[in-house]
Parts: sequence; structure tokens; C-alpha cells
Amino acid sequence: MMEDTRNEELAGLRAVQPIRIGARTTVGELVTGLQGCAFGAGRLARAVAIYEAMLTEETTKFLGIAGALVPAGMRSVLADLIRDRYVDVVVTTGANLVHDIIEALGSHHYLREIEQTSVGGVPEDVWLRRHNVDRIYDLVVHDEAFAKLEAFLHGIFERLDERRYTIRELLTAIGEHISDRNSILRCAVESNVPVFCPALADSMIGLHAWIYMQSRRLEVDVFADMRELIEHFSVANRTGAIILGGGVPKNFIFQAALVAPRPEGREGLDYAIQLTTHTPEDGSLSGATLEEARSWGKISGGAKTVTVHTDATIALPIIVAALRERMAQRTVR
Amino acid sequence: MMEDTRNEELAGLRAVQPIRIGARTTVGELVTGLQGCAFGAGRLARAVAIYEAMLTEETTKFLGIAGALVPAGMRSVLADLIRDRYVDVVVTTGANLVHDIIEALGSHHYLREIEQTSVGGVPEDVWLRRHNVDRIYDLVVHDEAFAKLEAFLHGIFERLDERRYTIRELLTAIGEHISDRNSILRCAVESNVPVFCPALADSMIGLHAWIYMQSRRLEVDVFADMRELIEHFSVANRTGAIILGGGVPKNFIFQAALVAPRPEGREGLDYAIQLTTHTPEDGSLSGATLEEARSWGKISGGAKTVTVHTDATIALPIIVAALRERMAQRTVR
Amino acid sequence: MMEDTRNEELAGLRAVQPIRIGARTTVGELVTGLQGCAFGAGRLARAVAIYEAMLTEETTKFLGIAGALVPAGMRSVLADLIRDRYVDVVVTTGANLVHDIIEALGSHHYLREIEQTSVGGVPEDVWLRRHNVDRIYDLVVHDEAFAKLEAFLHGIFERLDERRYTIRELLTAIGEHISDRNSILRCAVESNVPVFCPALADSMIGLHAWIYMQSRRLEVDVFADMRELIEHFSVANRTGAIILGGGVPKNFIFQAALVAPRPEGREGLDYAIQLTTHTPEDGSLSGATLEEARSWGKISGGAKTVTVHTDATIALPIIVAALRERMAQRTVR
Amino acid sequence: MMEDTRNEELAGLRAVQPIRIGARTTVGELVTGLQGCAFGAGRLARAVAIYEAMLTEETTKFLGIAGALVPAGMRSVLADLIRDRYVDVVVTTGANLVHDIIEALGSHHYLREIEQTSVGGVPEDVWLRRHNVDRIYDLVVHDEAFAKLEAFLHGIFERLDERRYTIRELLTAIGEHISDRNSILRCAVESNVPVFCPALADSMIGLHAWIYMQSRRLEVDVFADMRELIEHFSVANRTGAIILGGGVPKNFIFQAALVAPRPEGREGLDYAIQLTTHTPEDGSLSGATLEEARSWGKISGGAKTVTVHTDATIALPIIVAALRERMAQRTVR
Repeated sequence: MMEDTRNEELAGLRAVQPIRIGARTTVGELVTGLQGCAFGAGRLARAVAIYEAMLTEETTKFLGIAGALVPAGMRSVLADLIRDRYVDVVVTTGANLVHDIIEALGSHHYLREIEQTSVGGVPEDVWLRRHNVDRIYDLVVHDEAFAKLEAFLHGIFERLDERRYTIRELLTAIGEHISDRNSILRCAVESNVPVFCPALADSMIGLHAWIYMQSRRLEVDVFADMRELIEHFSVANRTGAIILGGGVPKNFIFQAALVAPRPEGREGLDYAIQLTTHTPEDGSLSGATLEEARSWGKISGGAKTVTVHTDATIALPIIVAALRERMAQRTVR
Repeated sequence: MMEDTRNEELAGLRAVQPIRIGARTTVGELVTGLQGCAFGAGRLARAVAIYEAMLTEETTKFLGIAGALVPAGMRSVLADLIRDRYVDVVVTTGANLVHDIIEALGSHHYLREIEQTSVGGVPEDVWLRRHNVDRIYDLVVHDEAFAKLEAFLHGIFERLDERRYTIRELLTAIGEHISDRNSILRCAVESNVPVFCPALADSMIGLHAWIYMQSRRLEVDVFADMRELIEHFSVANRTGAIILGGGVPKNFIFQAALVAPRPEGREGLDYAIQLTTHTPEDGSLSGATLEEARSWGKISGGAKTVTVHTDATIALPIIVAALRERMAQRTVR
Repeated sequence: MMEDTRNEELAGLRAVQPIRIGARTTVGELVTGLQGCAFGAGRLARAVAIYEAMLTEETTKFLGIAGALVPAGMRSVLADLIRDRYVDVVVTTGANLVHDIIEALGSHHYLREIEQTSVGGVPEDVWLRRHNVDRIYDLVVHDEAFAKLEAFLHGIFERLDERRYTIRELLTAIGEHISDRNSILRCAVESNVPVFCPALADSMIGLHAWIYMQSRRLEVDVFADMRELIEHFSVANRTGAIILGGGVPKNFIFQAALVAPRPEGREGLDYAIQLTTHTPEDGSLSGATLEEARSWGKISGGAKTVTVHTDATIALPIIVAALRERMAQRTVR
Repeated sequence: MMEDTRNEELAGLRAVQPIRIGARTTVGELVTGLQGCAFGAGRLARAVAIYEAMLTEETTKFLGIAGALVPAGMRSVLADLIRDRYVDVVVTTGANLVHDIIEALGSHHYLREIEQTSVGGVPEDVWLRRHNVDRIYDLVVHDEAFAKLEAFLHGIFERLDERRYTIRELLTAIGEHISDRNSILRCAVESNVPVFCPALADSMIGLHAWIYMQSRRLEVDVFADMRELIEHFSVANRTGAIILGGGVPKNFIFQAALVAPRPEGREGLDYAIQLTTHTPEDGSLSGATLEEARSWGKISGGAKTVTVHTDATIALPIIVAALRERMAQRTVR
């Protein structure tokens, strides 16, 4: 190989270093190899580096969860992140909590190969409907799971105190009644990690809360959580966000980051990682760049950020496995 | 041209009919030409046909709005849909209402060409932050607009009655104080079209409501809207949804469609149109197919549906222009 | 409405002007309305403005065609662009020419609704295979069409002169034998618009050329077209590209723009429009920004460019209809 | 946790099994954990399982390479796949070979953070152009690298025999002159793996071949490779394709699979894996489903296939690392 005369225009830039893969590679080693790569590979490695900085630099870590990650098999990954305090505050869609409870109650989600559709029979989704099975892309869940959920929730609502609950408090109360140690909500209670769900009304939990309210007393204050969420920003040293998918959790975390009173001269998140398949071209928040968030002051001008444009079910396990390996190595030293 | 011997395997299928474009084509004529095309073109034409069926067959029409459509210039299109009762019920993100009020208060959004970035200066979004300008993809808005919004909202909150408001009622109260005739919220009040916003807490309106609540009395019931929304489904003859972008509005409409009591043997939406750039592969609800919704019973087994995979700012004006032309022609006859 | 105090930070920026839609709108009027909008809407309007500049400023216009646009119903739109010299040079995938000839020979493509798949029968694509029907997303074509194509091509190959042909010359020879006036290849011959197809080997035309070569004489020079394509750049006053979908045609046009000798101080395309659903995040050329092409010198530093991130079957008819209307108005004046 | 009464409608379906991640996980273990997950995670695991089947069941493996994978850092991964005969036949875009040679000649690609753009300076890509630096998304390469490439290629062309070369033969000749052991082209020569590049004309190699032809003798037959590629299908026991990105390589492999004579009763590929960010909605081949390919007979009715909708720079290293681990374990047993 000839020598490369480094051109001065390229001063300060790192050369792409092609990754090599051996016979038995740990995920941490793989990610180290990806550090010298471009496109999604390099961004994935950068996400790990940023998350590692959050874990080692006394950072309050906010996790935003959107998309059906729990039914897709990410439940334990998320629960363990909470248990081991890889995250300090959770903001989620209601659906992920619904499916967390469903699994806690002993029901399961099932894999259904969707590419082999067929001719001469009943339309697939009509067939599923007739059999009381509900589909989420390539997985399905039985209506029975939702019946169990309903009974469970009404049982909890009955035992609540006669006071107004914030959504966070209501979710804590639910978590306290879950015995499944793999549950996100239970882990959150045990680890003292608050779970916020600003659009709870837009979920089966919200629906059953509302049904219960029609005949019984149940008071939920949707706005009160804002004080608590903002407080987590205000008392933080550094702050970081891990955004899975976008949606309301992304906006709610960023909104709190924007309005929280911070020490003089500081504003916005110090770190942010975003895993999403959405792209910015249609102007939607889910696909919006993290750069854009700097213009609002939601992310600080000097923050370290990266967006990995991929399905979170692919990127999240890799990031978590690499992080666990690196953190274990740090402990050993 | 030789004759085509129609193969029997193709029985019942329409041949693609290439569109021809003349020197002065109305949007309605263009869409008629697209009816014989495949891919996005054919689906756009099908969306118009389905919407036209909703408009002519006594259908309660639910509009879901997600994505920054109002700042992008769709505000009057949406307001006019309400005014002319092309929609009967609106479910939206808070952001679209925030920007509707901002424009009603005399502020504007501005276009910013983002492709020409530069070297040797200040990072663009940091520069914008320093100048109090906030970016949404290729448009910007000044912080001043949000200051006006705050003053306006607090003024309204002060004049509210001493009772608990549903979110829908709160939005009606705001709409009553808007004088701009192009405002979505004002049009909704004037046309008696309810506006629901289940994740209001996740918006500047929710934020200011919460700030106000810290020192003054303001009670908002987030769950109560469900009864009213479900009622719109229950009393409807036929039901249809126009989903722009997905998000919470899509889920909230579909959830109501699922749980609303309907006449014996009927369930789910009879029509559904979805305009979105999201695709189903990551399992997110925004990209989920309308077929999948049939398995849940959110859409009826025999419903007419179509998804147009495109930026709603492109597809919506075309659909609306074609519909207006067709409806005008029907009136003439 | 209150007055907007224009902030000086926004100096030079246009305010978003919400589009209004009347009862009978021409496509040209619609696009004029979109000029004041952001996101895809504004970009679509900008594409029309850039194309209009190409048509009125003595520009050699290169059209790149990738994706199955011909079977989808865009055949006449493309043929008419050639006939009316809205384009001067065409670079295409082989597939679009294959389907152009198939339609010229009297076969058709058929629409097939793909969302209604079914359970309990034969997998759809296996069923289609058994019935000799080939699928392209939501359209199908019968194997018989390819049999006719084969016979037609072999008939032409037999009548060719005993000399080496460039691909462009071979395509001209084919076009001369097509009687269907709506054919792209025939229109190109009649209008003296060259059609290049650098990856012809990767198509049924290339396949049949190769089969023919096994037993008969047929010589095709794949590299020779480069001189001719480059010549079109070199003699041009201004140059513009309309890129549909990306792929090899995009690269081939850009490569020629890069290496063509131009007058002192000029380099690269002066105008470029790109209609594609691909986005840049995976580093593929199809989704690459037009800004990136400036770093190579493929597009000039001061060129006017825009990418509309949408299915070309949606955007192309709108752009063409708006252009025809504007050009007709210019003629009248 | 309560027991799940398995509903009979779900008979035969596997329950989603949430993945757990320990402190030191190999990539193979991670992928095993993903097997019980849905969405992209489950598909990634399925891709590994299908590739493992190809490696253990005497399958001729065709690799299609599109997108700038070599400059992005995948060069050694691809070269090692060839060296270790994880692939038997390669079909690629010209660009990947161009960048393979560039690195073989001692030049490098460099990483450039693109998210931090700036105001008040020179547009980034114009700045790069002035400094003779070319950008591919978030990496750059200096023009000097292309000057070296030109000198190298002309030197090879001069030493070629006076006969007509197929593209495959020309690429072999180039590979024979490369001394860098990490080069894809050199590995292919050493391992006797043919490299096809049907659209070579659409690359810098094709460009320089053409320039050379203007003054010197060089004859390249573009069609002749088809016989050789088809032959690989015809003599194969089983056949499998790994498609990275789509484009011409995907089509060329599938076209050969379609027309290659096979034993009675067999047709199409037996295995296929596709890694791409493109989705099917715009009808482009790159995003087309592998199911669709069954209707053409390009993939057999009973083939095992999967599409992972993600950037190949993310998925490929994971798949390769997991495969190497599994194959090593098989050897040990």
C-alpha cells in the first residue's frame, strides 16, 4: 500500500477505518470497530459514545419511548435500563405501558409472518378480527389480553385513595400492584424512576380510567406532572435524552428542557440521542433533526448529539450491549 | 397499435391508463387522469374518490392533524374544510393550535432556505438561537410570537368561568376570543365543529395552562372529552377518517371508533384516508397500514381505505382542490 | 388581525402565505398558491419555478428516469415532454424502455389492489406466478407481453446494418420500428431527442440482445455514448437536469456534467430538480442531496436546485401541468 | 405472573420472547436474543438464520452491492466475505470498485460531521469544491485520489492483451495489479470469485476506459458477462442472494436467476436477504419486496427470504459477526 500524502484541506479529519470482524466478537468490540465508519455505522458508534458520556459524567438521563417497542420484545431491555439506572426519568406513550401490563398479567404477543399473504381465502386482517386477534405489523395479540388488563386496572382504581392523582402517581400505583419482576412499571417503582405519560388519555389505560370515572370516583390531573418533570431538569447537573421513535415523549422532554429554570448561562440538553426511521423532510417532529432543537434552546449550542436513522428494535439492543460491556470494563479497572 | 388479447388471469382488473396533460388542466381533471395510474398517483386519485363518497353519503368525518401543517401554510385549507363542513370533528396535536393562534395574533412564520449551509461562520441553529428565532425544518418563527401567545392565553384563562372545563370546551373558549376569520379555532366555533386535543399538555397551550394553574384557578378534565368523541361515533350513520401524519390524533380517533357503541353488526370506520410519509416497517402507529386497523375492529372489514405515502402538504391541497371542483359540479347538475 | 412587527432577524425572509383553494382551480393556480408554503408544498412550487426558468432561458435539459414510471401510467407524460421539447436529452433505466415497447405492442399493465391480502388460500405472488402474471407493487403484467417483446426485438436485430451500434443508436433503431405514436422511443426519434441507457445490459432489451448475439451478429458499444452525452453538455449554453428517482440515470448525467469541457469559469449543471422518496441518511446516491453534488462540481456553486421528497408519479404530473399552463400563458402575452 | 391460556387462534405461532442483555455479549448471542423479537430486530435475526442456511447447505451465494459501502468503511468486511467464500459471485456498482482501488492506492476517505452547519461563511459544498474535496453524505475524499486512480487505470489498460475483454475479465485484470491485500478486487482474484459490474460505464472506471479508447485500443464487451453469470446459476445446487441496497446489482442478479436454465421443477433463488432503507411504496426496484420477485419466478415459491429495512452499514457488520461466530462453533463441534 502506498503512503497517503494527507492534504491540508483534510486537516483535523479522521480517516475512515474499515471495520474488520473476527470469529467471536463482542458487541462492544463491534461498536468500537464501527467508530471508524461513516453513515449509520458511524452514527451508531457515536450514540454509544454519547450515552457512555452520560453514564460517566453525572447526567440526569431522560428516556422517551414511542413506537410499539414493548410488544416487539424490548420490554426487558427497557426494564433493565431502569433497574440499573441507565435512565433516571421515563416519558412514554400509553401503548407501551398497556403492553407492559399485558405481559405482566401473563399474556403474550405472538410473531406472525406477514409476507406470505394469500389468494382465494379471507382477507388476513378480517380473519384476525373474526378470531379476536389484533395485529401490530408482524406481531399479534389476543383480545383476551385486553380483557385481563381491564379487570386488573379496575381492581387498582378501586383501591386508590380518595385524592387527585397525577398521571405519574397513578402509574406508580399501578406499578406497585404488578408482581412480574420484568415489568417496566414495577422496575420503575422499585428503582424510584418516575414514569410520565402525557397522552395517557390516548391509550387503553386512559380509556379504562375514563370508563371507571363514569360510575366511580377517580381524579387524575394531567397537567401537574409538568412541575415534577421540570424539577428533574432544574436540579440536574448535566442532562441527556435518549429518544426512541419521537412522538409525544420527544416533544414533552424537549418542552420541559426548554422551560426548566437552569443555572445562569446554561440552557437545553447537554446530550441527545435519537433512534428513528423518520426523516425531516415532511417537517414532522418525530423526524426533526437535533440541530433544529438547538434553535429553540431545547438542546444547548454545544451539546453532543446524534441521530441514528434506524428501527429502534435494531439499534437499542446493540447500544445497550455495548454500553454494558464498557461500563463493566470501567468497573474492573 | 396491435390489439391486446386480454388474458383471463387478468379478468376484472383495470388496465393502467396513462395520464395525458393538456395546456390548462384543473386539479379535478388532473386527478381524474391519475385514476388510471398506479403507485402514489393512483392512490391519490383513490383518496379523492373515497373522500367524495364521504361527502355524498351522509358520513361523519373525523379529521386527524399531526405534523406542523399550520405553520407550513395549510392553515386556510384546514380552516375552510371546517367552515364548509368537509369535516365534522377535528382531533389535533397542540402544536397546530399553537401556530393557529400565533397567526391569529398577527405573527407570521417565515421561509428559510436550509440547503445552503456554510463554513467559517456560526452554526446555523446556534445563530438562530442567539437571534431568538426558532426553526421547524425550512421555516422559522420568532420568540416574540410565543410571548404574544402567552399574554393572549393568560387573558383568556382569567375570563373563564369557575368550573371544570374539558379540553374541547377550553379550546372553544379560546376560539371565541379569536377575531381572525382565517383561524381554525374560530372557524370551528362558528361552524360548531368540535376540536379535540388529547395531548394538550404536550404543547405551549398546555404549558401555559399549567403555569396559570400554579397561582390561579383553572381546572381542565382531560378524560371527559372521550364521552363526547365517542358520542359522535355512536350517533353517526357512516363514519370516515382523514388522517394527516398519524400520531396521537390517529390513535385517538381509532380508539374511539373501536369502543363506541354502534348498531348491531356494525363496527369500525366505513372510510379512511391516510396521508403520511411514515411506512410500516418499524411497527410505529403513524406508519401502520389501514389494513392492520381492521384486525382491531377500528376499521370495518368492508371499509374503503387508502394510504398515500407522501408529505401531507403536497397531497392535501390537491385532494381538497379536486373535491371542491367535483362538489361544485354536483351542485350545478 | 393585529399587525406583525417584523423582527430584523427575519429581514429578507418571505412570510409563509397560507394557500386558499377555490371551487375550480387549475394546477398552475394551485402551484402558485403553494409558493408561499413550506415543506414539500413549497419545494414542489420551487421545482416548477426552476423548470420554468430552464424552459425560458435557453437551457439544455437532461431528463433522468428511474423507477417503474412507464408501467405506472407516466408514459404519455414522458413522451409528451420529449415531443414538445420540454427535455432535450433522456437517460433512462432499461426497464422503462421495456415497458414502453410492451405498451407499443398492444399489451397493457393492470392495476391490482394489494392491501386486501388473504388467509386460507395460495400466497398471492405464488398464485400470480402460476398464472404467468408478474407484479410491480400494485400493478401486474402478463408474461405474454414479454413474449411479444422478444419477437419484436429479434425482428429488429435481424434488420440492423452490419456495423457496431452505440446503445443510443440501437434505441433509435428500435424507435424507428415503433408505430405507436404515444411511445417514448418513437417520440424521441421523431423529435430528435437522444435516449441513453447506460445499464441496458441490465434489462430485457439487453438480455435479448445478448441472446441474439449467441447465434447471430450484433455489436453494441456501451462506452461510445459517453462522447455524445458529453458533447451535449459542451455545446450547451445553460444546462439543467430533471432527475426522477435517482439510480444510474442520475449518476450518468452528473458524471457527464462533471467531465464535459465547459467554457472558462463554468462548471456543473445550472439547474437541477430531483423527485425522489429516497433520503440521504444511508449514503446512497439516489437519496443524496443536490448540495453534495456541488462539492464534486457536478452542479455549479450558484445553481438553482430543489429536491421534492415524494413519489414521482405524484409530483411529475403536477409539475408538468403547471408548466404547460405557464408556458401557454407566456405564448398568449 | 399468571399463566397464559394459549388461545387456539394463535396455534403454531411463537410468542415474542423479550431479549435480555448481559454485561459481555457476543454479537452471536445478541442475534440469538433477537430471534424472539418482532419488527427489525426479528428480521435481522432471520437474516442471520437464512445466511447460515446458505453457508451450510451447499448454496451458490450471489452478493449484490449498491450504495457507497466501501467508502463508508465496509471494505474489509466485504473483502473478507470473498476471501472466506461467504460469497461466491459478486455483482456491484462501479462506484464501490472505484473506492476500493482508491484505498488500495493509499488514499483515504475522511469523516466529516455534517450536522453542524454554519451561518456567515461560505456554503459548505462550495467551500469543499474550492478545496478539491468531494462529499458523500458524512464522508469526503480528495480529488487527488481520483488522479491516482486515473494513472493506475491507464497503466493497466496499456498492459492488457490485444483482445476483447468482458467486464468481468477487465476487473480481474485490474485486481491482479492491486497489491493491497485488503482490496475487494484483489481478494476476488485470489479467491477465484468473479466480480460483475453491468453498469461499469456509469463509473470512473468506465469513464477512464472510454477516455483511453479515444486514442488507444481497448475493447470491452458488456453483454458477454451474462453467459458467465447465468452459468453460475445453472450449475448451482441451491442459490441464494444477499442484496445490499438494491439498484442495478439487485436487478442483474434477479434477471439472471429468472433466465438461467435450471433442473426440471426448479426456478428462482432458494434464499434471499435484502438490506435496504428503501420501501416499496413508490414502485422502485430497490424497495420492492422479495415476495414480488416470486411472481416473476426470480425467487422460488418456497424460498426463505427476509428484508431488513435498515442502512446496510448497520446490519451487515452484525450479520457477518454473528455468522462468523456460528460457523466457528460448528467447526469446533
